[in-house]
Amino acid sequence: MIEIGIIGANGYTGGELLRLLNNHPQAEVTVATSRKLSGEPIYKVHPHLRNLDLKFEAVAPEDMEADLVITATPHGASMNIVPPLVEKGIRVIDLSGDYRFDNLEVYEKWYGLTHENPLDAVYGLPELYREEIKSANLVANPGCFPTGAILASFPLVKEKLVKRIIVDSKTGVSGAGIKPTETTMFTNVSDNVIPYLITSHRHAPEIQEKLANYGDVSVSFTPHLVPVIRGILSTVHTFPEEDLDSSYVKELYDNFYEDEPFVNVLDVGEIPRLSSVRGSNFCQIGSFDQDEAGRLVVVSSIDNLVKGASGQAIHNMNIMYGFKETHALEYLGLHP
Amino acid sequence: MIEIGIIGANGYTGGELLRLLNNHPQAEVTVATSRKLSGEPIYKVHPHLRNLDLKFEAVAPEDMEADLVITATPHGASMNIVPPLVEKGIRVIDLSGDYRFDNLEVYEKWYGLTHENPLDAVYGLPELYREEIKSANLVANPGCFPTGAILASFPLVKEKLVKRIIVDSKTGVSGAGIKPTETTMFTNVSDNVIPYLITSHRHAPEIQEKLANYGDVSVSFTPHLVPVIRGILSTVHTFPEEDLDSSYVKELYDNFYEDEPFVNVLDVGEIPRLSSVRGSNFCQIGSFDQDEAGRLVVVSSIDNLVKGASGQAIHNMNIMYGFKETHALEYLGLHP
Amino acid sequence: MIEIGIIGANGYTGGELLRLLNNHPQAEVTVATSRKLSGEPIYKVHPHLRNLDLKFEAVAPEDMEADLVITATPHGASMNIVPPLVEKGIRVIDLSGDYRFDNLEVYEKWYGLTHENPLDAVYGLPELYREEIKSANLVANPGCFPTGAILASFPLVKEKLVKRIIVDSKTGVSGAGIKPTETTMFTNVSDNVIPYLITSHRHAPEIQEKLANYGDVSVSFTPHLVPVIRGILSTVHTFPEEDLDSSYVKELYDNFYEDEPFVNVLDVGEIPRLSSVRGSNFCQIGSFDQDEAGRLVVVSSIDNLVKGASGQAIHNMNIMYGFKETHALEYLGLHP
Amino acid sequence: MIEIGIIGANGYTGGELLRLLNNHPQAEVTVATSRKLSGEPIYKVHPHLRNLDLKFEAVAPEDMEADLVITATPHGASMNIVPPLVEKGIRVIDLSGDYRFDNLEVYEKWYGLTHENPLDAVYGLPELYREEIKSANLVANPGCFPTGAILASFPLVKEKLVKRIIVDSKTGVSGAGIKPTETTMFTNVSDNVIPYLITSHRHAPEIQEKLANYGDVSVSFTPHLVPVIRGILSTVHTFPEEDLDSSYVKELYDNFYEDEPFVNVLDVGEIPRLSSVRGSNFCQIGSFDQDEAGRLVVVSSIDNLVKGASGQAIHNMNIMYGFKETHALEYLGLHP
Repeated sequence: MIEIGIIGANGYTGGELLRLLNNHPQAEVTVATSRKLSGEPIYKVHPHLRNLDLKFEAVAPEDMEADLVITATPHGASMNIVPPLVEKGIRVIDLSGDYRFDNLEVYEKWYGLTHENPLDAVYGLPELYREEIKSANLVANPGCFPTGAILASFPLVKEKLVKRIIVDSKTGVSGAGIKPTETTMFTNVSDNVIPYLITSHRHAPEIQEKLANYGDVSVSFTPHLVPVIRGILSTVHTFPEEDLDSSYVKELYDNFYEDEPFVNVLDVGEIPRLSSVRGSNFCQIGSFDQDEAGRLVVVSSIDNLVKGASGQAIHNMNIMYGFKETHALEYLGLHP
Repeated sequence: MIEIGIIGANGYTGGELLRLLNNHPQAEVTVATSRKLSGEPIYKVHPHLRNLDLKFEAVAPEDMEADLVITATPHGASMNIVPPLVEKGIRVIDLSGDYRFDNLEVYEKWYGLTHENPLDAVYGLPELYREEIKSANLVANPGCFPTGAILASFPLVKEKLVKRIIVDSKTGVSGAGIKPTETTMFTNVSDNVIPYLITSHRHAPEIQEKLANYGDVSVSFTPHLVPVIRGILSTVHTFPEEDLDSSYVKELYDNFYEDEPFVNVLDVGEIPRLSSVRGSNFCQIGSFDQDEAGRLVVVSSIDNLVKGASGQAIHNMNIMYGFKETHALEYLGLHP
Repeated sequence: MIEIGIIGANGYTGGELLRLLNNHPQAEVTVATSRKLSGEPIYKVHPHLRNLDLKFEAVAPEDMEADLVITATPHGASMNIVPPLVEKGIRVIDLSGDYRFDNLEVYEKWYGLTHENPLDAVYGLPELYREEIKSANLVANPGCFPTGAILASFPLVKEKLVKRIIVDSKTGVSGAGIKPTETTMFTNVSDNVIPYLITSHRHAPEIQEKLANYGDVSVSFTPHLVPVIRGILSTVHTFPEEDLDSSYVKELYDNFYEDEPFVNVLDVGEIPRLSSVRGSNFCQIGSFDQDEAGRLVVVSSIDNLVKGASGQAIHNMNIMYGFKETHALEYLGLHP
Repeated sequence: MIEIGIIGANGYTGGELLRLLNNHPQAEVTVATSRKLSGEPIYKVHPHLRNLDLKFEAVAPEDMEADLVITATPHGASMNIVPPLVEKGIRVIDLSGDYRFDNLEVYEKWYGLTHENPLDAVYGLPELYREEIKSANLVANPGCFPTGAILASFPLVKEKLVKRIIVDSKTGVSGAGIKPTETTMFTNVSDNVIPYLITSHRHAPEIQEKLANYGDVSVSFTPHLVPVIRGILSTVHTFPEEDLDSSYVKELYDNFYEDEPFVNVLDVGEIPRLSSVRGSNFCQIGSFDQDEAGRLVVVSSIDNLVKGASGQAIHNMNIMYGFKETHALEYLGLHP
């Protein structure tokens, strides 16, 4: 049984870590921090966790005692919280964007920050970096959009079949976090669709950098807010040099993901949707069809808070500690 | 490891049984029937169960082989399916209304049917009938509305504190089943609230009969369809003979439910809501406040497909077989 | 053509006034105030009003020039804004609670405020106070819940048929206003039902005071937040002394409301719902059925921002100025 | 005052025609047909139209008496209903796909039908074909997706700035019609996003044919069902030959649409959304930004039942009869 600390446990990803880890047979959350809510029971902000007997604490990073710390802290904050933990010999999984980029300049440009404490980190997408994750001391958990976008595009890029991808994503509102804003009000989101940061979202360069490691590709990305609590559906539009048969493409994906416990490559004609993966760590990938204009479409669906954040962090933890990869992540999607 | 058969596995309660039992350490679904879909993989109608390696079969009740059969069949059908199973010595949990009533006349009047095969059955509300369930061969799983309404009212009735209760319930759409109807179309439900069977819903006499076993009470009930997938919130309005302090009422509920693994009695001031129990087998009960007009309000929330149907069936199964009561029901609510 | 000023035009009721008055043949909005947004075009906060060529202005009440001012300001603020307007001879319709109560003590107790500037005002429910509204200089526009609750209960109370009513209301989120809060976040409201101020909502004493003018009645009230943008459905549970036939009750309502342009008394068996009145000034009233326990149910539905606020204000204005009552309010509900 | 007949008035587009025409000063619906509901009041299926004093009738096309008939009938049916009307000298606006295509072969291939009665028709997109519509006897009202997609792409295509467009659309559920199906159930749509006919939707060749009249362009199209009642947001991804400045593109659109009463070209930085046009006949067009990969994005939003169907039909009617173009279409969007 390893001991886990969660820094910033009062947000949605913190809540998800607590919800899922409650069913982990070899790991236990021993500290859940929140400066603002110190002393309050967890269920004050997470009403669904009423059965957890745990209180928020205010613990400074340098005073943390745990085998593993998961930092559910915003970008800009993580870069100051992670280093003292690593220094103490604690392994860390960071949910922010601070340690995701190989190219610091790209990070600093898109995040508008100077990175004060760069460290070596492994990009925590198990399907691509499983080996490196096993021994990592610092794992940078991928962004929610990049998770779905990369998994949907990777085989095509790796096989050099496409040179340009357009990722049109539809995301649930929980991705915007627990803090109330105009954007996330029910009256603004319900019965509505709102594109945002249409040509300037930070996850574009993250997708670009990771895919470019495997092939020469140019990435375009636009997210849309839809009236959904959880989930990201990414429609990847691309134009292969030559026509590709659906079953050929499906087989390609089958081969890439055949041993992956959380990737479902769907049959030709089967359609990914959010409800198939709601609350679960699965990623569904499907379509593989090409139209008369030569466009090939691949679609992926994930739960942004699970596979796109906290579930993937637990998957990374399971890999880091040699646990069964599916521990705490066995539950299937919640449909309807 | 016991073997379970599910008759009528192609509906929502069938899907929930399969979803939840997938994580049961001592029970396994070996047969899932559907006449219409025989031979098709489960995920054809349950897209979230893509990882289950199971196909629908067409098996007649008299040919079922299993330790326990759960009949997720409509009222009127169950009365013909259950008897041959019981005769074969198979234990049965029936999700329909056919075996819930002690008074056959009430059943026949409200369901508009002649009951052809009455049998002795235990009403499967564990909080009231745990002892009887242990040795039951036939358990009649409670209706979804009665589950929440009875749990919210029972202590007041048992203590003879109230003589009349008005249950105003708000229900998600999944309670109407998997078959498309005008009522359940998105365009009719979304951004809408629709009361129905305002003074004539079948669950009224069910609540009435069960509570009347414990005290002299008159029950009124009205359900409302709200734009929610899962969940029933029941607001119980009642007028105690004398004024009751909130903390006194809360303590009363604490005492009644203190050993119950799935009932959360909330603090005074804490408010039940659907998201706290979404996807889980928990029932939250709260409010306990009285207004200037003498009205005392108690509110309960459940997931209609879990605590209100399939989860409660598994709870009953766990009790019948002496398993840990929380097996397959450990997962917490899905919020947000 | 009269000139209208709207004070506090940057909220939802302000937006509705602007949307509806745009189609008024005899009235024109000439000033729309917002201190914070002074100088900005209206559509900065009201994206649907892009075609209105109007900017927010910062105008003090004492400097307002208009025939009529509608104060879409919060309670506590209105009591300081309204008096200088009235003093200048401007007629005023106030949307806050500040001038709704005959009994100041009740107001001060429930609103937790000392009323500094009491004035004579007419309660602006046209169906009850049309004559008084005609010549009023200050109209206190009713609360959203009281509008639906009073219209649904009034005939029964006036005829002394009931002594106690329980109003169980389900409201859309727009009633909470335009300012983001935890309560109104999509992630908290969607797929959820949340009762609030279960025995302590301010609209309870408002309903109580207005109905008590017509009969001896005791009012209980509980609101529930449902995942709906607009609309209030109120289910009124009551227990008449003697049994009342549905068609008798329906006829009673028909008689009371036969000349009312915005009240639809439904047939027995027809069910009020929010989508029937969405975006419109109509109130639908129906059910009229009694159950075996003697409970009689009447249900009303309104759009909280129209009949429950801005539409009713325009109706009051039309009455005050002798315009056709339906001017600017002709549009039917938006369904689906 | 002209007399209008609606054939197939029992669907959503029929309901919208009735809702909007109720406020038309120069046109009146005198016949609304439905074989199935003949004799029933309109509000039996359109609960929001309770104040319309009109009943469904069963009238054969050859017996219709009206100045104009709007056929709200499915493709395949219209081709048999329209010709007898035209023969009688009645002007017709057809909402189906039957008369939209210049190239019959394309129609027959994508609709899987043999067209038995081809007739000359004008494509009823006022922004492109106003002159031809004025004198048309048969107007083919555009498809809902093509309306938004063409308006968003047309200036770029006409100016030969782009050669390829990818239209990624998100649509509300009302586009699927009033008939209940699995696809349109609340439980399947809510909290979900579902792409469909990913590379094979019939509206792709319609967009292709109409745009190809103005420039050499290759069109790709994918629709997604989102949990929204009304509205289509279309994100058009395209790659101009050379970099285009946002303000240059915006100005281009301004020039094309400057006299259009229902097209709002938004400012750079302003974002189209569904709630801005909900229930109204407006189309908002915005974005105009280009990303580092050279992709230029233009986004449009419409209400699929109004600008995408019935409102556009009324706009066409106003043009055909020389009425003020905005008659019956004055109402602004319903937000929130």
